[in-house]
Amino acid sequence: MKSIYLERLNVLQSYMDQKALDAILITLPKHVYYLTGFASEPHERFLGLIVIRQEEPSLLVPELDREAAAQAAGWLTIHTHLDTDNPYLLLNKLLPASIRRIGLEKKHLTVHQYEALAAALENRTYTDVDQTLLEMRKIKSHDELERIKHSIRLIEQVLEHGVKLVKPGITELDLVAELEYRMKVLGADGPAFDTMVLAGEKSARPHGQPGNRAIREGELLLFDLGVYANGYASDITRTFAVGDVSDELSTIYNAVLEANRRAIAAVRPGAPLSVLDRTARQYIEEQGFGPHFMHRLGHGLGLDVHEYPSVHDRNDDPLEEGMVLTIEPGIYWPGKGGVRIEDDITVTADGCEVLTAFPKELTIIG
Amino acid sequence: MKSIYLERLNVLQSYMDQKALDAILITLPKHVYYLTGFASEPHERFLGLIVIRQEEPSLLVPELDREAAAQAAGWLTIHTHLDTDNPYLLLNKLLPASIRRIGLEKKHLTVHQYEALAAALENRTYTDVDQTLLEMRKIKSHDELERIKHSIRLIEQVLEHGVKLVKPGITELDLVAELEYRMKVLGADGPAFDTMVLAGEKSARPHGQPGNRAIREGELLLFDLGVYANGYASDITRTFAVGDVSDELSTIYNAVLEANRRAIAAVRPGAPLSVLDRTARQYIEEQGFGPHFMHRLGHGLGLDVHEYPSVHDRNDDPLEEGMVLTIEPGIYWPGKGGVRIEDDITVTADGCEVLTAFPKELTIIG
Repeated sequence: MKSIYLERLNVLQSYMDQKALDAILITLPKHVYYLTGFASEPHERFLGLIVIRQEEPSLLVPELDREAAAQAAGWLTIHTHLDTDNPYLLLNKLLPASIRRIGLEKKHLTVHQYEALAAALENRTYTDVDQTLLEMRKIKSHDELERIKHSIRLIEQVLEHGVKLVKPGITELDLVAELEYRMKVLGADGPAFDTMVLAGEKSARPHGQPGNRAIREGELLLFDLGVYANGYASDITRTFAVGDVSDELSTIYNAVLEANRRAIAAVRPGAPLSVLDRTARQYIEEQGFGPHFMHRLGHGLGLDVHEYPSVHDRNDDPLEEGMVLTIEPGIYWPGKGGVRIEDDITVTADGCEVLTAFPKELTIIG
Repeated sequence: MKSIYLERLNVLQSYMDQKALDAILITLPKHVYYLTGFASEPHERFLGLIVIRQEEPSLLVPELDREAAAQAAGWLTIHTHLDTDNPYLLLNKLLPASIRRIGLEKKHLTVHQYEALAAALENRTYTDVDQTLLEMRKIKSHDELERIKHSIRLIEQVLEHGVKLVKPGITELDLVAELEYRMKVLGADGPAFDTMVLAGEKSARPHGQPGNRAIREGELLLFDLGVYANGYASDITRTFAVGDVSDELSTIYNAVLEANRRAIAAVRPGAPLSVLDRTARQYIEEQGFGPHFMHRLGHGLGLDVHEYPSVHDRNDDPLEEGMVLTIEPGIYWPGKGGVRIEDDITVTADGCEVLTAFPKELTIIG
């Protein structure tokens, strides 16, 4: 595993060369994990990966994490601080005076942390490196893809189990509790986001919240759920019919399914991300449901359940091999019901691999 | 309810008078909730409560939250922004040029947000108001206390249920899954932190993680758990004996129990917070276990599960009526087992009320 971290750290070295930065300080725990394999949650304590240009990187961690850091990333020099230390003063000692231009994650660091850092490290200037990390994370390694696949397998088992429990009378919140229980039992770290189970007219609200609403025959039932496992997220949506549903609802369902399939068929390296959104949106518009698909088509998936890049109709950045994206068109008919069908895909050399395997034809349950 | 928000906003007005601030911008969602009753999770979108000195406050929320904001806090002027707007430019329009000195939550705002704000709002200076909010939150209103009590009742029901499931062979993670399931079923918003179930020698690690370790007869079993309900947290720890345990482990247990009782008996308004920690620590030292109690005695509890003030031996700030604190001494004997007994208490006019009612004498289960 060490080689993959060295490779990632090398990308940061090249970036420093390009931008004439002297060092990069990484403080977001997920990024420390991504670059070293050391996973931790330091809460209010200071955690920093110090990457100096043309030097070996080192970690500055709370004293109580020394052992865990050494175990996960023993190839790094590990410095520690006590709760009574000012970690920024220690950091200042670790950064020679010649280090002037420093890269920081400005979307993660709080103003409070930044002011403490700037007070301890005199005569430095700071540049934002958030985007560099997002660009790196955008393309998944083989190992990352395997972790995402594992996370997807888990959530599909959870969904399969949940679907069997559906019967008229059970509530949305009952199902959420059962699904999240199953996630834990199967060994997931936990839900990747608030598990969504929405029945009937509530399925027509993309931001609806599950409640004590009993599920009835003849309505749609939407499940949107995911887990984190080994640090990586999954995210899937399926919509079912509880008993027979009206022709109107079947029509919506089939329009969403076809939009999902068309968007997936349009995936190929080099095509703009916007093409996927437009392909799905155009089909839904042609079926007369355009105004009822009012969110973007999808998003990147990896260390975060919603990550860079965004799949919307104005993002003309190219699809690249190794990206992992969600494809999740939906139609939400106020007062009647909503359908969303979400798959996770990865871009391959000549198209894409669909990572989610859960059947997506309209299925009657309950 | 509106009157309590007006009262809290008045405290901010007085603070602005004292500090000669022209306005305070509140962006932490929990603080917006605390000051207005509007609960929301805007994710990457901008949410701000604008409190101008000697003027009526207003909210700036994402367009899709307009309805929810109006429903929760209709007495406020509500401004909205679209995803295509720069919310900081809108904010600039809402702040007359005479507004120069602005209070911000610097522990919440990221450097990225701060730079965007400072670029849009020219010629302003910024002061940190985090501590003011923490001071306000430190003293709980009657309504807040009721919510905390409700959250405690829920977690005690969860614990009662979980204890019944213990039998040799069940794993720590099985119990975590059952406990978190129960939280959902009983209507909690969710766990207040990662539920901790630690058996045997693992109970001796204050930062241990539950695993697939089967529980055995003769060992200690530590539960540390809490929920959020209606926005407020609970937090309780109980340690049990699975079957009969050794005299050594019983001795540790009784030392922790007595330390817990003595600390609680020492609570009274005006006494320094440090006295509670010292009372518990001194007793544990006298029993010869001093080096095995290596964390602070407790912390504030409310909108956050760990909040201001901290209960440790160097915090000489006075106890005040209306504070809610955890009292959680522990003894951790490496390789053998650990005990922690955590209660939630509120400081009253002449002492304290213990909010947790779960029995705390050594109980044999399984």
